[in-house]
Amino acid sequence: MSQLYIYNTLTRKKELFTPLNPPFVGLYVCGPTVYGHAHIGHARPAITFDLLFRYLRHLDYKVRYVRNITDVGHLENDADSGDDKIGKKARLEQIEPMEVAQYYADSYHHDMELLNVLKPSIEPHASGHILEQQEMVSKILEKGFAYISNGSVYFDVAKYNKQHHYGKLSGRILDDLLTTTRELDGQEEKHNPFDFALWKKADPEHIMRWNSPWGEGFPGWHLECSTMSMKYLGEIFDIHGGGMDLLFPHHECEIAQSKIATGHDTVRYWIHNNLITINGQKMGKSLGNSILLSEIFSGNHPLLEQAYHPMTIRFFILQAHYRSTLDFSNEALQASEKGLNRLLKTVAQLDALPVSEQSTIDVTSWVKNCYDALNDDLNTPVMIAHLFDMARLINLVKESRESINAADLDILKRQMHLFLEDILGIKMEQAESGESELLPKVIQLVLDIRQEAKKNRNFELSDQIRNQLGGIGITVKDRKEGADWEIE
Amino acid sequence: MSQLYIYNTLTRKKELFTPLNPPFVGLYVCGPTVYGHAHIGHARPAITFDLLFRYLRHLDYKVRYVRNITDVGHLENDADSGDDKIGKKARLEQIEPMEVAQYYADSYHHDMELLNVLKPSIEPHASGHILEQQEMVSKILEKGFAYISNGSVYFDVAKYNKQHHYGKLSGRILDDLLTTTRELDGQEEKHNPFDFALWKKADPEHIMRWNSPWGEGFPGWHLECSTMSMKYLGEIFDIHGGGMDLLFPHHECEIAQSKIATGHDTVRYWIHNNLITINGQKMGKSLGNSILLSEIFSGNHPLLEQAYHPMTIRFFILQAHYRSTLDFSNEALQASEKGLNRLLKTVAQLDALPVSEQSTIDVTSWVKNCYDALNDDLNTPVMIAHLFDMARLINLVKESRESINAADLDILKRQMHLFLEDILGIKMEQAESGESELLPKVIQLVLDIRQEAKKNRNFELSDQIRNQLGGIGITVKDRKEGADWEIE
Repeated sequence: MSQLYIYNTLTRKKELFTPLNPPFVGLYVCGPTVYGHAHIGHARPAITFDLLFRYLRHLDYKVRYVRNITDVGHLENDADSGDDKIGKKARLEQIEPMEVAQYYADSYHHDMELLNVLKPSIEPHASGHILEQQEMVSKILEKGFAYISNGSVYFDVAKYNKQHHYGKLSGRILDDLLTTTRELDGQEEKHNPFDFALWKKADPEHIMRWNSPWGEGFPGWHLECSTMSMKYLGEIFDIHGGGMDLLFPHHECEIAQSKIATGHDTVRYWIHNNLITINGQKMGKSLGNSILLSEIFSGNHPLLEQAYHPMTIRFFILQAHYRSTLDFSNEALQASEKGLNRLLKTVAQLDALPVSEQSTIDVTSWVKNCYDALNDDLNTPVMIAHLFDMARLINLVKESRESINAADLDILKRQMHLFLEDILGIKMEQAESGESELLPKVIQLVLDIRQEAKKNRNFELSDQIRNQLGGIGITVKDRKEGADWEIE
Repeated sequence: MSQLYIYNTLTRKKELFTPLNPPFVGLYVCGPTVYGHAHIGHARPAITFDLLFRYLRHLDYKVRYVRNITDVGHLENDADSGDDKIGKKARLEQIEPMEVAQYYADSYHHDMELLNVLKPSIEPHASGHILEQQEMVSKILEKGFAYISNGSVYFDVAKYNKQHHYGKLSGRILDDLLTTTRELDGQEEKHNPFDFALWKKADPEHIMRWNSPWGEGFPGWHLECSTMSMKYLGEIFDIHGGGMDLLFPHHECEIAQSKIATGHDTVRYWIHNNLITINGQKMGKSLGNSILLSEIFSGNHPLLEQAYHPMTIRFFILQAHYRSTLDFSNEALQASEKGLNRLLKTVAQLDALPVSEQSTIDVTSWVKNCYDALNDDLNTPVMIAHLFDMARLINLVKESRESINAADLDILKRQMHLFLEDILGIKMEQAESGESELLPKVIQLVLDIRQEAKKNRNFELSDQIRNQLGGIGITVKDRKEGADWEIE
């Protein structure tokens, strides 16, 4: 059952997954940039690689899952706050980038917890690895594949491309790229428009800065992932994941700089999840269709017809294959919500299912089919279709049109929970919400019935109700103005 | 109301709190060392400074609260894994200190959330500020108050003490200390037993290490707090807090090294919470009486008679003044639990309180008394006594033995919630637990009554029950074998 085939973006085919150093697996995934709340686009990589993490652990691998926090941002003071003003301003009055980063990282963690995304083994911060990043810059400079220009250090892509293929992950050719690219801002420092910064000189208005051998500045964005993945997983590690939007240039740059720093490739399997569209359109702040996860959970957004439970979102994402685009719409979400509720309702009734001598249901094949789907590049839509098939059969058993024996029912129960809860990560008790607000209402309803019974001098019923409530831990206290209650 | 007096350990008296740079307040508190789960001793500083954070914000200060994570630990590989073996071992097979640190930091955060301790504004990691710590070591070396010895850098306490008073915070005199101290391990590198490491050379078995101008090593423990507090709060900041166990030598060392690095004192108010004893004894792992927070919440510890709700623990800690020792015992906790439940129950009935034309209760004085207690060095036991007094009066109003008018009731409700929830941080809806398991039982009870009514051909009642359940969102479905229900 543990023959997991996974699509490797680098080779463009599904490959049998074999860790470098079993039973250990090293998994690195590009995490969020914490200068804003998480939107629906953040949910997809988080859930995709959470599924992979969960499934690898289910297959008894010892997984070290590293997902970074990009907190070396580009926050600046107001344009008119020159060098001098900053110097005079008290530290506490300034925006503190780390305070902003902490706020959004906390918000991200909160959303991930609601989505039942497991915490990674290590969540390193880019700002916490400045020394390591500087050491990697020095190595690349020593090897002659970077140059210093006006206090910044750039990677020399053209020189790299003479010996290696810059673009091998995304299937690009540097010469083609060069002929179709316009000059961008700040290019005058670079020898070549595709060169990228390993270390950036900090302008006076940059408030996040560190000393370095090249002057005060901050590390280039691509550098952090190379540095931190190797620090925690070793110079060669199993899996590097991320969204397809990071494929180029971020991951190409990672490949190039790591190759020069170490002399070899560092990543064995590159895995990318596809993107989310909204009502068929690309998502973007400028398009006005970017929806925060908190807005989805509350329903508070003009594009939303209702609030959606985090488990609906999770199920919706898993109902598509991670390499397919996924279109986000009210219709699609409502369909997922309905389907998940139907599925959970059926599963909740498994304990009460009548047992027969013989099974007409082939549970063993069903289990195999589910694993086959997972092993086929994490094909969750097919796997979930098998879960729905089984739900249909379970309902037929209830109607005595199919039957199941005790041994099969045991397997079914165990595997259904493994598939739904452990691997897909659906939190079953959370899927129905708002229960705690209901309790006082139902208790009041009971007390009203009792009050009515007393009025009708039906003291037998009224005493029975008090005793039964007492039996489940709710004490009733009769007062002049009616009955009061208390949980023991 | 905002005349907060707070006890400054440095001056040994209560002082009027006036921020350096109002409305901003900088608050630094020594956080946990994340190489073990949090125990009851961790709850006290967390809740004490959470109270201070909440109250300062209530007083409309803009507080930047920095609480560090000490993750530069002393984890070592097995003694027999010498340099060579480590080099050959794959990265993934080694213990990764950051994975251990992440695990325990996550556990700490989970416990703090249960205790309703607010997240600090910034939670910097010691391992994330190596560069800054190295820069501070260099400064102290340049000023001539540190020396390099066998790859480590030590602070020269004797030299410092000739110009300044080493021990001024804890009231110690260096000469007295020296005559009563035995030689300890590793002292041969030091000029003086009280010299402390700013940078420690890493032994071969140390797996957490960074390059530095003095060789591979790691920063001394005292250094991180000085570095990170100044980085995020400025070279002079308002409040430095921590447990009394950190007063000496940790905070003394902070004072000394910061004074040399900056030329002045950096902290304006030093605040220390007192310690927790268990059944009258000092707490300690070796004494076998160290209780984890998770054990308290589950009741799973030989010293515990029951589980205690996190809000009981919080209330228990706030019922003592933060500068008093606090003895942890089942009797004391049970008393807190009872008291809190009584208080919350009364507060929950405020909405239903009968209103009169006149008040016999002096709500204005009560509000003032509560603030006076808080302003008197955060005297929460006195403040909580006022809350109990008011609860007693509220119960008398219910019995028509006291009265309250509408305006006073409004003030009372608002202030009671502010005091209990916003300032003391008691999460009211959480204080009563286990409710979600009760709901299905109560619904079943209602359906049983309805079944009985149907049996007695009392269809009026049975329909009424179905309609009332429907009205609060619970659909009843009649089946052959009885009724089923569903939350809409």
